[in-house]
This record gives sequence, C-alpha cells and structure tokens, in this order.
Amino acid sequence: MTARNIARFWEWGRKIICVGRNYAEHAKELRNAVPSEPVLFLKPPSAYVKEGSPILVPRYCSSLHHEVELGVVIGKAGTAIPQSSAMEHIAGYALCLDMTARDIQDECKSKGLPWTLAKAFDTSCPVSEFIPKERLPDPANVTLWLKVNDVERQNGSTSQMIFSIPYLISYISEVISLEEGDLILTGTPKGVSAVQEHDELQAGIDGIVTMTFQIDKTW
Amino acid sequence: MTARNIARFWEWGRKIICVGRNYAEHAKELRNAVPSEPVLFLKPPSAYVKEGSPILVPRYCSSLHHEVELGVVIGKAGTAIPQSSAMEHIAGYALCLDMTARDIQDECKSKGLPWTLAKAFDTSCPVSEFIPKERLPDPANVTLWLKVNDVERQNGSTSQMIFSIPYLISYISEVISLEEGDLILTGTPKGVSAVQEHDELQAGIDGIVTMTFQIDKTW
Ligand SMILES: [Mg+2]
Ligand SMILES: [Mg+2]
Ligand SMILES: [Mg+2]
Repeated sequence: MTARNIARFWEWGRKIICVGRNYAEHAKELRNAVPSEPVLFLKPPSAYVKEGSPILVPRYCSSLHHEVELGVVIGKAGTAIPQSSAMEHIAGYALCLDMTARDIQDECKSKGLPWTLAKAFDTSCPVSEFIPKERLPDPANVTLWLKVNDVERQNGSTSQMIFSIPYLISYISEVISLEEGDLILTGTPKGVSAVQEHDELQAGIDGIVTMTFQIDKTW
Repeated sequence: MTARNIARFWEWGRKIICVGRNYAEHAKELRNAVPSEPVLFLKPPSAYVKEGSPILVPRYCSSLHHEVELGVVIGKAGTAIPQSSAMEHIAGYALCLDMTARDIQDECKSKGLPWTLAKAFDTSCPVSEFIPKERLPDPANVTLWLKVNDVERQNGSTSQMIFSIPYLISYISEVISLEEGDLILTGTPKGVSAVQEHDELQAGIDGIVTMTFQIDKTW
C-alpha cells in the first residue's frame, strides 16, 4: 500500500460514524427525547460527495433535509480510547452535511427498521476540504452555519453539544474500533429544513471554511 | 495505490451491506413480517474477523446470536445495476456470520433507533476465505449450515431466499453505489440462537468451505 494522504480521507477512509441528537434544541425540534447516551448510525464511504458535484435527492424521498455538522477525521487508530487521550487520535476536521431523507427516517423509526435508506444513500455525506487540527485549536467552540438560497437556516456553536468530542471518541471506540481516515459526524444544531431540486446550500465555519452544493434529482 | 487482491477483500473493502429477513422461516422465528422490499443495514469494515481470532461478546450484550449467511463479494463497481447484468459484478463469495446483539436489536426496534450497537460492533462480521465465483456456479442453490459445540443449529438452502442475489444487487445499487471489494450479506435461514463465552461455532457450505470460531468476552 502506498502512503495515504489524510487530506484526501474521503478517497480511502473506510467508515463514517454519525451521532444523532447531539444538540438538545435539535432533538426537541424533531420531537425526540434528549438522549442519555449517544445515538450512532453509519454511512458508507460511497456517500461522500465533494464541491463541484451535486447532492442528489433519492427517487423515493419527498423530504430531503440538510444537517450541518462538524466532522472529526481520525489520524491514529484505537480501541477503547480513554477520553484523556482522545484528542491525540484526531488528524483534523471537515465541515459536513448529514443529508437525511426525513420522510423515510420517520417511517423507519415508526416501523423499528434500520435507518439505511434515510441516511446512507449516494451523496448523503457532502464534505469540505480537510481542516488540519492546528487550524481549529478549540473544536468545542466553533460556529457552524448553513444557508439555503442565501437564507440562513442553521447557526449553532459546537459548545452546545450534549456529548463532547473526547466523550464520543471514547464511547464509539469501545464498540467500534477507529481507524486512520475514519470520519465522525458529531450531530447538528437546530434549524434543519427540507430542500428541493435547484436549491443552493452554502455552509461554513467562520474564518475557516465555506462550501457550496447544488441540489439535483437522481432521475 | 498498489493493486488490491480481491482474495483479501476484508483488508481494503470499504463497505458491508446486510440484508435482513431474506428467508421467510427466519422472519417468522423472530416474529417479523415477511418484507415486501429488502431490509438493509450496514456493518463497518472494522467488524471483520478471520479464523484464528475470536468473536467477542460486546460488554452490553446478554444475547449474542449467530446468523450464517452467504456473502457476495463485488468485483466491478456500479450504480443502478440492472438485474440482467448483476452477476457480472460479482468476483466471488464468502461464508459469513452476521453476529447480532439480539437483546439490543429488540430494544432498538422498539425505540425506533438505528441498529448500530446491535450489528456493527468489532468482530460482528466473521468471514471465511474468499471463494472465486467459478467455485460456486449456482449460488442460488447452495446449503449453508452452522453448528454450536457440534450441535447443528442452522441448515438452509439459498434457494429459500425471498429476494435473489441479482435482485439485491440491483436494488442496493439503485441507492448505494457498489464498489470493488464491497460485501453483501444476503440474510440467514432459520435456526438462529444465542451463544456464550467458550462456545465453538463451526459453519460451512458443503464441499466448498468450512470455518471455526471461538466465542470470547471483550472484558
Ligand atoms: Mg459502513
Ligand atoms: Mg445528523
Ligand atoms: Mg442477518
């Protein structure tokens, strides 16, 4: 295996672990209880999409929601990582969207089915350029924002997370070993809403990164 | 990137897509409805385990079930693959276990939560050696069996699948693009049961492959 470039983690990283309901105000807006432990789900690497390619509405979805999230890129593998050394396992960050087929998710929840069709479809994980950890010295205190067609929908600080980044790394790696190139999506602040074909999504972390995606249909 | 060896797909493959309730008798034994479309969930590649290493009971699980399944290894990438050409995307097969924290899965189902803790933990995907497709000319008619401590628990034919392998490849790739090295677990016949620390699992496809795993505790 030739050396892999962490700045292009989406080309070779092997898993995406997402945390649901990690901001109390977002849990409430979807009428979910504030969780007592992290809610985890997976996206496959085939869900990655980069600026320049569109986000595609799945054929079966009539309510595609944006969720802007801070992504944590793992630089050092580990199992059962203690919180005290968790930050050493981080190579950097990425601004991410957890695109969600909300109508399908509601159906999965009511039927007790896995969330795969709601969360794991192609283009369900738009990501920004890689942000080396030196450029984000305090990830527990950055503002994430998202606009749809220039109207602000989400604006929240990672300081509002229920479970901190070190807690999440420790909790996840107790069950699912973390490997270099893995991505953790840390949950979304309030303000999620539905998007349509031809909408433009812009998201950013002030002073650090912005990204823009168009919404298109699969068919 | 140097050439990747498909016979060691577990070392570099990027996703594992599992099909639930694909045998009517198994759906019934868990009191689930026979589905009208495939039930899909994901395991991460960190779930792979090979003979020689144990299957570990997660700390939070008090009912770890075995599910013996035929795994399909993808050799050629594709999106929205028609059923008529689906078999061309297969490089080969593997005998697989979909290890399941059944107590946790029941809880996830009743709470409308994703199945991650029930299905995606480390060692939840034991796999045999790679079986080139030439060695399994009729994958729709092979017998899978599993014994616990020499007592047969599962014995079923892939001819009993509700959704065929070409149907599954087409259905999945409509939503989630398939890539070289991906693995599809095609569901389990009836006879799932709980295993304990120190149990020995043996599974096989007659005349093709056998594999043996020990159960151990994480802690
Ligand atoms: Mg995955
Ligand atoms: Mg989310
Ligand atoms: Mg199964």
